[in-house]
Amino acid sequence: MVIVINKNTPQEKISILVKQIEKRNITVHVSNGVAYCVLGLIGNTSNIDSHSFEAYDFVEKVISVKEPFKMVNRLFHPEDSIVNIDGKTIGGEKLAIIAGPCSVENEEQIVSIAKSVKKSGAAFLRGGAFKPRTSPYSFQGLKQEGLDLLLKAKAATGLPIVTEIMSISMLDRFVQDVDMIQVGARNMQNFELLKELGKTNKPILLKRGLSATIQEWLMSAEYIMSEGNENIILCERGIRTFETYTRNTLDLSAVLAAKKLSHLPVVVDPSHAAGMWWMVEALSKAAVAVGADGLIIEVHNDPENALSDGEQSIKPERFDSLVKELKSIASINSKAI
Amino acid sequence: MVIVINKNTPQEKISILVKQIEKRNITVHVSNGVAYCVLGLIGNTSNIDSHSFEAYDFVEKVISVKEPFKMVNRLFHPEDSIVNIDGKTIGGEKLAIIAGPCSVENEEQIVSIAKSVKKSGAAFLRGGAFKPRTSPYSFQGLKQEGLDLLLKAKAATGLPIVTEIMSISMLDRFVQDVDMIQVGARNMQNFELLKELGKTNKPILLKRGLSATIQEWLMSAEYIMSEGNENIILCERGIRTFETYTRNTLDLSAVLAAKKLSHLPVVVDPSHAAGMWWMVEALSKAAVAVGADGLIIEVHNDPENALSDGEQSIKPERFDSLVKELKSIASINSKAI
Amino acid sequence: MVIVINKNTPQEKISILVKQIEKRNITVHVSNGVAYCVLGLIGNTSNIDSHSFEAYDFVEKVISVKEPFKMVNRLFHPEDSIVNIDGKTIGGEKLAIIAGPCSVENEEQIVSIAKSVKKSGAAFLRGGAFKPRTSPYSFQGLKQEGLDLLLKAKAATGLPIVTEIMSISMLDRFVQDVDMIQVGARNMQNFELLKELGKTNKPILLKRGLSATIQEWLMSAEYIMSEGNENIILCERGIRTFETYTRNTLDLSAVLAAKKLSHLPVVVDPSHAAGMWWMVEALSKAAVAVGADGLIIEVHNDPENALSDGEQSIKPERFDSLVKELKSIASINSKAI
Amino acid sequence: MVIVINKNTPQEKISILVKQIEKRNITVHVSNGVAYCVLGLIGNTSNIDSHSFEAYDFVEKVISVKEPFKMVNRLFHPEDSIVNIDGKTIGGEKLAIIAGPCSVENEEQIVSIAKSVKKSGAAFLRGGAFKPRTSPYSFQGLKQEGLDLLLKAKAATGLPIVTEIMSISMLDRFVQDVDMIQVGARNMQNFELLKELGKTNKPILLKRGLSATIQEWLMSAEYIMSEGNENIILCERGIRTFETYTRNTLDLSAVLAAKKLSHLPVVVDPSHAAGMWWMVEALSKAAVAVGADGLIIEVHNDPENALSDGEQSIKPERFDSLVKELKSIASINSKAI
Repeated sequence: MVIVINKNTPQEKISILVKQIEKRNITVHVSNGVAYCVLGLIGNTSNIDSHSFEAYDFVEKVISVKEPFKMVNRLFHPEDSIVNIDGKTIGGEKLAIIAGPCSVENEEQIVSIAKSVKKSGAAFLRGGAFKPRTSPYSFQGLKQEGLDLLLKAKAATGLPIVTEIMSISMLDRFVQDVDMIQVGARNMQNFELLKELGKTNKPILLKRGLSATIQEWLMSAEYIMSEGNENIILCERGIRTFETYTRNTLDLSAVLAAKKLSHLPVVVDPSHAAGMWWMVEALSKAAVAVGADGLIIEVHNDPENALSDGEQSIKPERFDSLVKELKSIASINSKAI
Repeated sequence: MVIVINKNTPQEKISILVKQIEKRNITVHVSNGVAYCVLGLIGNTSNIDSHSFEAYDFVEKVISVKEPFKMVNRLFHPEDSIVNIDGKTIGGEKLAIIAGPCSVENEEQIVSIAKSVKKSGAAFLRGGAFKPRTSPYSFQGLKQEGLDLLLKAKAATGLPIVTEIMSISMLDRFVQDVDMIQVGARNMQNFELLKELGKTNKPILLKRGLSATIQEWLMSAEYIMSEGNENIILCERGIRTFETYTRNTLDLSAVLAAKKLSHLPVVVDPSHAAGMWWMVEALSKAAVAVGADGLIIEVHNDPENALSDGEQSIKPERFDSLVKELKSIASINSKAI
Repeated sequence: MVIVINKNTPQEKISILVKQIEKRNITVHVSNGVAYCVLGLIGNTSNIDSHSFEAYDFVEKVISVKEPFKMVNRLFHPEDSIVNIDGKTIGGEKLAIIAGPCSVENEEQIVSIAKSVKKSGAAFLRGGAFKPRTSPYSFQGLKQEGLDLLLKAKAATGLPIVTEIMSISMLDRFVQDVDMIQVGARNMQNFELLKELGKTNKPILLKRGLSATIQEWLMSAEYIMSEGNENIILCERGIRTFETYTRNTLDLSAVLAAKKLSHLPVVVDPSHAAGMWWMVEALSKAAVAVGADGLIIEVHNDPENALSDGEQSIKPERFDSLVKELKSIASINSKAI
Repeated sequence: MVIVINKNTPQEKISILVKQIEKRNITVHVSNGVAYCVLGLIGNTSNIDSHSFEAYDFVEKVISVKEPFKMVNRLFHPEDSIVNIDGKTIGGEKLAIIAGPCSVENEEQIVSIAKSVKKSGAAFLRGGAFKPRTSPYSFQGLKQEGLDLLLKAKAATGLPIVTEIMSISMLDRFVQDVDMIQVGARNMQNFELLKELGKTNKPILLKRGLSATIQEWLMSAEYIMSEGNENIILCERGIRTFETYTRNTLDLSAVLAAKKLSHLPVVVDPSHAAGMWWMVEALSKAAVAVGADGLIIEVHNDPENALSDGEQSIKPERFDSLVKELKSIASINSKAI
């Protein structure tokens, strides 16, 4: 950590600050430059809130050298993590394909889509039971019944199921019945929820918040891991920018950054990123080319009558041909579906 | 609502779509232009998800004319709402000053700050008991004990208390003891929490999410109001932009927009917006000049040793002189503290 | 174009506005809804500035249906444009690889890199002679001498040269000696420069501005084309967002959008987007997978001593192996290098 | 400057880098931490491009301590700069009001508006002669004739004139006839233009680019000042963010930041920031309250028929009453109109 101090500050004030810091067993190296006096802090600064020093009126700024995340940091865990989900894996040489409708609508729909995506090569079934919607007047999901139907689809296909949790009150049910619990972008900093999920050992699919920095995203993963649950998969799903042509802006460089900074697997959600069905295939190919560990794709047999997100869902036949193309690209990065 | 259709679309397909829409008792006006065929939908379109039409491959885009929010819409409620909080009001000709430390730290601290800010002119006491922190290793607040201490400070001063809720599990306690319940920026789209708050009649201070559009912010207020609770105060607290010199970018035009689009009072949080104590006074004056209905300001007697957010807290003496200046500016906008 | 009018507006005022619009040979369709009165304008509205209607105090908002660009619009030119640059092409089934150093530094450097990238498969040589730098104290390029050296590299390899223009005063020299003139992100809305370039018939590589919407980017292309020059290649090079880990955020969905909305070829610059050499290869692969018509990549034989942008340049041997991988991915999209 | 090095780097490589840096007369302080090896550079690092070190594959990141701007830096020029414009001043205890139409349209228009705004208290007349427009089909200004008309308005009122330059080719005319030359947001990084303006001694109104950081904005001022021209006024005019309700987001904290980091006066343009006439008055008051040194406001006698930006222009009578309110607020900050 580096503390930059106004050069007109009385030596006395600086000394008091230095002593305070040294009390925490940190060595302070003082450099007097032309423009500033600079304090270099050497030692274990990880429990210090760097911003707190900015409360001193003579401190110009504080610069952190070290990342604030520990358990998810690749520095201390150089190998890729591989997460096991009901016998299947995400991470390493595997390219995981998660597919299914935005919302579970009825038994016939979810079971038939599940069978279809499995046949095409999907390893996991997605489907929303509890739906976060911007409007209170929009369809909010089938809720508990939706979970029941997902279980039927799992029974029919063997595909592990992935679905979003919206409240701690549903945790027991999710732990019992869901194979990978999704934390949506809007709840990425619902810290109470993260802590509770950290106390389970369920695989967690942690979506990046709409305007979360990569560091904040990894800190949310740290919330889960610091409670004991190491089964975390990150999911890049587009960020909010000034561009409104697409629903969000897919940030594929974030996949590279997250994989460099942490050891966790990273999957990509091209459906929510673009918000337009006709972009999903091309963005899926790009995500695999950049080196993502998997994809989560919305597939619907009748998008025009879908109860939610029909505009960003692709039809089963397109999904089928897409998976074939993805296999070729994955092999260039030494991955296999 | 306006649906823009690719001009090469067979008439048959358009007719099917038009009939589907008409079934919902909506009149469709078809205009055939040079570049596009345009459908104008007239009638009650408020329950239609405009994006759903984009699932049709011949639909180029869908444009909403009407705002999706209803109960918070000024269109149907032209007068300003005034919210009553334990005998005091926010909205109308009142400029409400909410002040106090970021976190409640101990009895001496919260009681003395409460007395001090009251003397300077604050009408409400703020103080965090449950703290949302980016890092799991940062101070998370005194929690229940923090609420106990807030009650002591209220007993000593009579100031109604404002504090943040982070989980539905704490709702009963908050309803019993807190005068205005704050929903933080990170929970602005924690829809389960919003619905539960909507079932109470407690005043809710709804902070704008880090990257929430004004429309999304009002939709979150709609979540609360649609459950029955009309006591909502909006709070602009800075948005995330490309500029990193400040913690966030205070968006004062959002105050004007929110007050035009809705009838709810809007207060401003200059402390979180700037993230720097030396900006708080100037931004407070700007917020009052623009026409905000109140301010929520972090005040700490010893910012350098604060357990959180010391860098953005001002000292009681500066707060005292600030309130005097605010009174002059408020009077120009026909408001009084 | 749709004009939304406040429902309390006197009929008289609306009639005056309608008559004014009809004078321009536009048909106005009036719909009186519950919340608003809506005017639908049918006819040639392309020369009308939609915002101008917002000067009326009874107009709530104005919504454009049609894109404001014409000559670059795919609607009126459905086939892909293919641009010929000194005998080579960009667009269609060709994947164009443009490579070379950020700055031309000396003859030995530029000639040797040119030979190297040609051998690896590049079809064009890039190299900056006039450099836009944030700081006036940074290396500003070899200027005219840089152009001389580019010509030597062209003579030695036959590769057409691509370099950035920064001022109209250099136009004659560029038209004479440069094969494809680059307009940098910072000059995307230097309209005087665009107009002058539109009067030449030189191929123009138009980079997207740091925070330019896709529509603004296409409007800048329209500036060039409306003056007569149809040889335009668009270049996505990353946009500015809240995320600062990467220099910019590469927006691959913009490639898809620009190709859908316009008929122009689109290339991608992964070097400037990421600003980090170790991301360049992966992002290049993603760009080809998404369907870009080409890449412009910074290659330097000695990045550690480069006079500019060494941090985002890859070495010739990595470029060589990258091109091999790109060929495989390109073939999936029916493109060849 | 601080260079963070991967802890697995061979000592030999680090030594070579350290020696290279020391050759530039910079002292290097090496700290070996648990996670990283950190090099602290002490001395005159202002001519070093910090990013260049990131080209080394063992360098994790480079952190600058010092700001890259010198002549505009308040550190070396603690007093506020006051700029003299044809006998009037901007900066210090003066609140400068610049007002006038977006575009000069005809003699009657510009002269009558000039008289009107002068009477209300404006000290400078603005009016566009050369207009940067997103569309090549929009009105581009009266150009040279516009300048002629501005001179007539100046002759009639004595108000110094402010207008935008778009090309170096017009520089001689502007130096001769214009009192303060405006550099628009889109040209903030047109470095060739900045350098030429730096060679004059004309006052320059430098608008902040749409997505320019405060540091980039000050670096553009440094471009001008490093060529010898010290007469620079900064202008905050709104930045591009995700919010699209307003045309831009007015960033009033940037006024505070620019005034702290530099000694230059800062004025605010509420008209372009909001893009809506009904927000202009409130934002003007906020800008004065925050401590801006002036305002530049669009005033038009007939906004509904303005040739450009009518939607964001206020009428003379509203401007008149606004100036009265601004005087009261200015006095709180010890400023006078």
